[in-house]
Amino acid sequence: MFDSAFDCVVLDGMVVTAADVGRYDIAIKDGKIALLAPARSLAKVQAIRVIEAQGAYVMPGGVDAHVHLSEPQLFGKGRPADDFSTGSRSAIAGGTTTIIAFAPQDRSDPSILNALDEAQRKAQGAAYCDYALHLLISNPTQQALGEFAVLRERGVSSIKIYMTYEVLQLRDNQILDVLLQARKDLVTTMIHAENGDMLTWMTEQLERRRLFAPRYHATSRPQILESEATNRAIALSQLVETPILIVHVSSPLAANNIRTAQTSGLPVYAETCPQYLFLTRKGLDQPGFEGAKCVCSPPPRDGEADLESIWAGIENGTFTILSSDHCPFVYDDSVDGKKSAISADAPLGRFRYIPNGCPGVETRLPLVLSANRLSVEKFVEVTSTNPAKLYGLYPQKGALIPGVSDADLTIWYPPSSLEPFPVTNAALHHNVDYTPYEGHIVSQWPRYTLLRGEVVWDRDNGGVVGQKGYGQFVKRGPSAWCREQPEWDVEKF
Amino acid sequence: MFDSAFDCVVLDGMVVTAADVGRYDIAIKDGKIALLAPARSLAKVQAIRVIEAQGAYVMPGGVDAHVHLSEPQLFGKGRPADDFSTGSRSAIAGGTTTIIAFAPQDRSDPSILNALDEAQRKAQGAAYCDYALHLLISNPTQQALGEFAVLRERGVSSIKIYMTYEVLQLRDNQILDVLLQARKDLVTTMIHAENGDMLTWMTEQLERRRLFAPRYHATSRPQILESEATNRAIALSQLVETPILIVHVSSPLAANNIRTAQTSGLPVYAETCPQYLFLTRKGLDQPGFEGAKCVCSPPPRDGEADLESIWAGIENGTFTILSSDHCPFVYDDSVDGKKSAISADAPLGRFRYIPNGCPGVETRLPLVLSANRLSVEKFVEVTSTNPAKLYGLYPQKGALIPGVSDADLTIWYPPSSLEPFPVTNAALHHNVDYTPYEGHIVSQWPRYTLLRGEVVWDRDNGGVVGQKGYGQFVKRGPSAWCREQPEWDVEKF
Amino acid sequence: MFDSAFDCVVLDGMVVTAADVGRYDIAIKDGKIALLAPARSLAKVQAIRVIEAQGAYVMPGGVDAHVHLSEPQLFGKGRPADDFSTGSRSAIAGGTTTIIAFAPQDRSDPSILNALDEAQRKAQGAAYCDYALHLLISNPTQQALGEFAVLRERGVSSIKIYMTYEVLQLRDNQILDVLLQARKDLVTTMIHAENGDMLTWMTEQLERRRLFAPRYHATSRPQILESEATNRAIALSQLVETPILIVHVSSPLAANNIRTAQTSGLPVYAETCPQYLFLTRKGLDQPGFEGAKCVCSPPPRDGEADLESIWAGIENGTFTILSSDHCPFVYDDSVDGKKSAISADAPLGRFRYIPNGCPGVETRLPLVLSANRLSVEKFVEVTSTNPAKLYGLYPQKGALIPGVSDADLTIWYPPSSLEPFPVTNAALHHNVDYTPYEGHIVSQWPRYTLLRGEVVWDRDNGGVVGQKGYGQFVKRGPSAWCREQPEWDVEKF
Amino acid sequence: MFDSAFDCVVLDGMVVTAADVGRYDIAIKDGKIALLAPARSLAKVQAIRVIEAQGAYVMPGGVDAHVHLSEPQLFGKGRPADDFSTGSRSAIAGGTTTIIAFAPQDRSDPSILNALDEAQRKAQGAAYCDYALHLLISNPTQQALGEFAVLRERGVSSIKIYMTYEVLQLRDNQILDVLLQARKDLVTTMIHAENGDMLTWMTEQLERRRLFAPRYHATSRPQILESEATNRAIALSQLVETPILIVHVSSPLAANNIRTAQTSGLPVYAETCPQYLFLTRKGLDQPGFEGAKCVCSPPPRDGEADLESIWAGIENGTFTILSSDHCPFVYDDSVDGKKSAISADAPLGRFRYIPNGCPGVETRLPLVLSANRLSVEKFVEVTSTNPAKLYGLYPQKGALIPGVSDADLTIWYPPSSLEPFPVTNAALHHNVDYTPYEGHIVSQWPRYTLLRGEVVWDRDNGGVVGQKGYGQFVKRGPSAWCREQPEWDVEKF
Repeated sequence: MFDSAFDCVVLDGMVVTAADVGRYDIAIKDGKIALLAPARSLAKVQAIRVIEAQGAYVMPGGVDAHVHLSEPQLFGKGRPADDFSTGSRSAIAGGTTTIIAFAPQDRSDPSILNALDEAQRKAQGAAYCDYALHLLISNPTQQALGEFAVLRERGVSSIKIYMTYEVLQLRDNQILDVLLQARKDLVTTMIHAENGDMLTWMTEQLERRRLFAPRYHATSRPQILESEATNRAIALSQLVETPILIVHVSSPLAANNIRTAQTSGLPVYAETCPQYLFLTRKGLDQPGFEGAKCVCSPPPRDGEADLESIWAGIENGTFTILSSDHCPFVYDDSVDGKKSAISADAPLGRFRYIPNGCPGVETRLPLVLSANRLSVEKFVEVTSTNPAKLYGLYPQKGALIPGVSDADLTIWYPPSSLEPFPVTNAALHHNVDYTPYEGHIVSQWPRYTLLRGEVVWDRDNGGVVGQKGYGQFVKRGPSAWCREQPEWDVEKF
Repeated sequence: MFDSAFDCVVLDGMVVTAADVGRYDIAIKDGKIALLAPARSLAKVQAIRVIEAQGAYVMPGGVDAHVHLSEPQLFGKGRPADDFSTGSRSAIAGGTTTIIAFAPQDRSDPSILNALDEAQRKAQGAAYCDYALHLLISNPTQQALGEFAVLRERGVSSIKIYMTYEVLQLRDNQILDVLLQARKDLVTTMIHAENGDMLTWMTEQLERRRLFAPRYHATSRPQILESEATNRAIALSQLVETPILIVHVSSPLAANNIRTAQTSGLPVYAETCPQYLFLTRKGLDQPGFEGAKCVCSPPPRDGEADLESIWAGIENGTFTILSSDHCPFVYDDSVDGKKSAISADAPLGRFRYIPNGCPGVETRLPLVLSANRLSVEKFVEVTSTNPAKLYGLYPQKGALIPGVSDADLTIWYPPSSLEPFPVTNAALHHNVDYTPYEGHIVSQWPRYTLLRGEVVWDRDNGGVVGQKGYGQFVKRGPSAWCREQPEWDVEKF
Repeated sequence: MFDSAFDCVVLDGMVVTAADVGRYDIAIKDGKIALLAPARSLAKVQAIRVIEAQGAYVMPGGVDAHVHLSEPQLFGKGRPADDFSTGSRSAIAGGTTTIIAFAPQDRSDPSILNALDEAQRKAQGAAYCDYALHLLISNPTQQALGEFAVLRERGVSSIKIYMTYEVLQLRDNQILDVLLQARKDLVTTMIHAENGDMLTWMTEQLERRRLFAPRYHATSRPQILESEATNRAIALSQLVETPILIVHVSSPLAANNIRTAQTSGLPVYAETCPQYLFLTRKGLDQPGFEGAKCVCSPPPRDGEADLESIWAGIENGTFTILSSDHCPFVYDDSVDGKKSAISADAPLGRFRYIPNGCPGVETRLPLVLSANRLSVEKFVEVTSTNPAKLYGLYPQKGALIPGVSDADLTIWYPPSSLEPFPVTNAALHHNVDYTPYEGHIVSQWPRYTLLRGEVVWDRDNGGVVGQKGYGQFVKRGPSAWCREQPEWDVEKF
Repeated sequence: MFDSAFDCVVLDGMVVTAADVGRYDIAIKDGKIALLAPARSLAKVQAIRVIEAQGAYVMPGGVDAHVHLSEPQLFGKGRPADDFSTGSRSAIAGGTTTIIAFAPQDRSDPSILNALDEAQRKAQGAAYCDYALHLLISNPTQQALGEFAVLRERGVSSIKIYMTYEVLQLRDNQILDVLLQARKDLVTTMIHAENGDMLTWMTEQLERRRLFAPRYHATSRPQILESEATNRAIALSQLVETPILIVHVSSPLAANNIRTAQTSGLPVYAETCPQYLFLTRKGLDQPGFEGAKCVCSPPPRDGEADLESIWAGIENGTFTILSSDHCPFVYDDSVDGKKSAISADAPLGRFRYIPNGCPGVETRLPLVLSANRLSVEKFVEVTSTNPAKLYGLYPQKGALIPGVSDADLTIWYPPSSLEPFPVTNAALHHNVDYTPYEGHIVSQWPRYTLLRGEVVWDRDNGGVVGQKGYGQFVKRGPSAWCREQPEWDVEKF
């Protein structure tokens, strides 16, 4: 049946897909899933490597669809920390085998293709895991819109736009231009939904009162900014009748707007992130500059009830995917003992200068699985299968289909074999000097990560054992949830 | 008890207030309500004038809080039609004794006081009815905001801002500036809530396809533009915790957003207008340029269900007031036989050049009362008492309080004494060459209008019998629904 | 103008109706409102009695539409406390001039007319205030339904039914029978909406665990019993397309169901009571048997947020009326030192034996006005005008219409003239040995109560100065909100 | 690896699970899924039978969780049509390999075990497909409740109760008894949610007017009966905090109630059926008695918008499962030329005598797949995987897990290989003399059905080729969505 040995067999795992969970064996050949067979039935086949899963969960490798790497610093004053190399290294150590990073358009550039070239150049030969790219668009010129077709040819089927940040924010008519083009070219549009004008105003109000400390970052962005912008994004999508994905939803109010849209049949998808499942604004209210470690946008929300509500949104299907929004900056960027966000008149720093983002590509899967809140099928669905489907990586990624799917696997520890332990930054593999999850207790961690059949992470024997540059660029097709549609008809309104 | 004759007695009316309806007599002295007494009990008192109401409805004079007069043309190409004289003449012929008109700031003027001076100058000596002014703000400079206190001193306690029209539209942070100042100075903020960026985009889409005819005016402004902007206006008001009034609500979706806000306790008020109770987009879809007669913004909506929904919103309290949004333009502004909105390449006109607005100050009360949909108490509430309370005219206007309220009365015909008849423009008193209600059947019309005790409209004997210039400027206090609040606290967020 | 002296003039009151508030004088003659005139303009007219209001609020006399008097004890073990005499005495001392009490059908009696006879007999000659009657129906036989027309002739235009209490509870098909008949005869149906089957079950669960103490009364009736039954009542009303009034709504969840129904245009009205504005379940959780003083149904709810929500429901119009649900039982009904609800095995009493109800006819108006939460117009609307309109007492009651309305007035103390003081049962005029509001601070109390022109309560000079038996039976017409409808058509479904 | 030949291999199917779809091979041994391998990689392995799928969909065998067989007639006058033999034969011909039928308790029997014995006796040796049983409870005596533990031992983990039908309807407190016991014993409760009292009343109203024709069946059960009961069932479940499944949801209003409950985190599940996706009340309004063929409860709803809404509910996850509610009665039960529901005075029959139910076990899968509305993963999810999980059949049924799942497969025709054709009753395999889908066009039909590795249906070669009695009773565990909970605590309310 197979004329030579398998490259690898994984025996006796509790194998999980987005629908099913059962104990069986997996054989791998030529980087692909080759055979699924009853538990231990492959114990005696020839294989170069045999992994005894011992009943541990075996899952399709994690797909993290929201990772910022090697990007220029656009606002704030911090120093970016991870490039494709360190970021992707961190990914595999946390069980993620594919990331989608961003190619940011320079606002002064009427084209978006230079951004793509640049990002591919940076990633080339650097990655430990497979990667794809979203185009981050800050200036949707006619030229840029015309290039969507080129993006698609080059395997980029998604873009991201912003409703906030002065240097990135689009006006509503610009968003409609983007959405209409996305509809034509079967491109998926990701939207950062916070009301930038309200943010500008809140920031001014705070600065005017000299309320500079890191915790005022949360004050400057109350939930209503996010729920308003989410509602508006939905309206824009509804007008053009094309799918959108609201990224990094943090607010129960915004989640409720999304749910309502979904109930009425609109193609509105949503992403949330671990920071909205585990962190609250208490994290921002630390002595000194410490709160800067939890500065991300949207900010962690008020309390447990908010976290509960986001968990519930994953369970009830409001959230389609769970990504890290890994956005790495150096905490201590001191030069001559002075952090860049700190000045004589603002000794705790000015929150507007703190770059917005936390690292998380490595901790995403262990934190969420350890929380033991989701069924394992749902866990695989939102962390691997759905991101793969949503962004056109499926069925190459996000599944275990014999002969079809890449042999990307995350293999955990057998039940109860790992003593719960605290997350420490020292044990992580990114290039960031902190993690906002320092001290959070986890009970699971990937024991092995396999990328296209190769063991690239072996926690107990060498840790990162994959090679820099083994990671490949993955060309993507359209989203499974984008459909060809007739031309948009203004006359129907 | 009264040491001399009354100036006027109204005998045996079915007198209606916002809460009560009963048959009784009213005596007037020195321009004020002097006495309320049992039916016919005043039949023999001395009075200069005696009006036999014969069981007809007698109501506090109508208060129309949304009337555009003597304004410069800001967009479109039409010619404004009414000044304070012709507009206020039309008002009294329709039973309205007080109007609130607009003083529009010139966008290039950092101050708003010139606008106020200018409007007062135009109105001086011209009005047939009493009038007050809203300040229409298109450029909320620091200077302009600082002048809110002066507005209040001069009896102007409300302003209007726009979320649409390129020459008027404010950004969200500007709106927040206005709202915060309004909160401090107990000024009421009226908001035209349509998403201007979406409108710009829709207009471009239509023009690009050469879809120019009047009916595309409705296509360019689907309900979602209004419901989106309404939702956003509510969010802005919620952030600053200050009341807003959404003007001329046409969309059931927007009304639903408002209702939801009201249910959750937010101080959100709303106005609707007869065009959203009687007209549909069918009115726009007429042969030739005829549809231009129904061009207003927001446009008349799709069908009967929309109209029903707006009526229901009045009944259930979603709408606080019902105004005309009288916005008069000349239909036939031909010069050399060519209407300004019509050109060789657009022989039906280009909708973007058709000025937005319909006349309606005279037809407001007769149309709505004849529809026989509202209880008479509710009718008085939304057309007289509530506008007076909302805009600080109460209890001088909008009520029949002895010794306190001006003797402004609208006296209708006795039951069944008037044969139903069609509205015709020929019978109206504005300076506009059409009415969108041409042919609508009404069964009631004001028989007498009294302003401060004087009969100014006597339909069967002379029609407009009041004098130009008898109308006075009314200084207003703060809205009954604005309360002193502690200073806004950004730290609570 | 008036050929003889007035019976009474009230000078210089701050007179409040459901729509208006202004300072003026009121003259009374022959038990009716005779004249409304400018403040102090009647200072010199001839009058038998002159009351100087000194700027105090003067309002239409309170109408309390939910008062239980002289009823047999149907469940529980307590002893009813008030008859028409003591109950109506308490009413006028609290500013209420009209009550609507209940005529309870005996379940074994196929007719409802005996109940009406009996109630009228009991009230005859006993009342201090005017009164009307609701028919309380526990057995809607064909005969009983046929008698609705007789009820109407005899001036009874409302009935009350129960969805709970084993001896009173109707099944849904019986409720539909009642509603269909009510539709035909323009009778208003009041519904006690709690799910009786759920209550039976909860009570059993509690008793099985020997959880007998008074506080378990609240446990036995969680909000969900009320919100479920409210939703069901709305569905039944919707099927038959006839108005209902949900009585004594306590639950924010139920209020939300009602609001949703009203938004969608259904004729659903609601009543709430002071116990749901001032009491929480803490009142039930007192040492010993003390908690029994707060046992009513539905029970006081969990906390401040619930109270806030009910206040908000009054403000936004969800609640049409505010009644007392005065339901008086003796707290200490000891015989030989033993209260009837207490037994050897349940030394704190068994909650199921505690009769359900609190006194409140006298405290209703002072508590709510002192809370200073509602505008005074809204206060008059829900405590006087709306109950009068809803139950067909208007315009005789609930208004101040010259020549039409009875001269029923509640006159309060001038602003700041009364030192805030605690409510004490000792100062009340009912026949109950407690008030659940003992110690609540009030800042206002009726100074005078006038019933048909007679001063019946003069707090500073004799207290209750009216005569037993002066109160009259008031024949009622149909509700202002019941309209003649075509016959109900089953085929439309 | 496998020491002997496979029993069967299915080559080159487009294999679908609830999460994944991909082209690969399946090997079967000893009635179980043995191997999943790349497409055509098993082309040369030894196998007793080889099936070339040719790219056709291959799915886990259908699980129909709602099938009535061999039940006594409880209401109406028709004659039941299918027993376990004919019903299960029909199932396999339509691609369904497992059914769950009902064991109906006799209301006079305090035990439920006799019902179970009886149903198992009837099924023994008769079935063509595998089967499990729900206990249908009409009298939840203490004894019956105590027997839930026995049910569980005997592999029955679900029960069904009714809120309608006079002979079956439980009161709310009885439902609470059932739910509390179900919570303790991890039993899943299915609820037929229509308000029986309202139905009784509507039926009386119709009969009183002599509106007897079949179409009045729909009139007697408007959507509000279903939405009311659904809301009540949710409230009951919420009180006891235990999952429920609302069966055969037909009404968008009810679906909306369910969705709202799910959004708020309640464990409320729902089933819908093909009749609510394809039939409308037009089907009931046929000449003569013909409409009886579409009589089921709830009835088919008003129009296309209702059908759309139910489809949308499947897509957005409101509905967990899609079953047939196969409820077979003979249409022409004439004896001496007279149908039992027809009498001299009701020549079109009396709708109340028409038994409620339609056949559908065979048409369920082909109709829904042919409609091409759902993704194929969603199709498998709601017709196979979710019913298996919900009712404790998983992973034996509803999945394709190597070594674990039964080799139950439904294999369709290759794309475009089948000409669309109309459903005809002549081609079906039940014992019913009609199908309500007569003439509906389908484009797909199962080509092969495999049950535990055996081909039991081969459409092109013999049709039903399985043996009567090959079907086995499947013992079930608890629902995947039932969790052990601490004892229910009444004191928390």
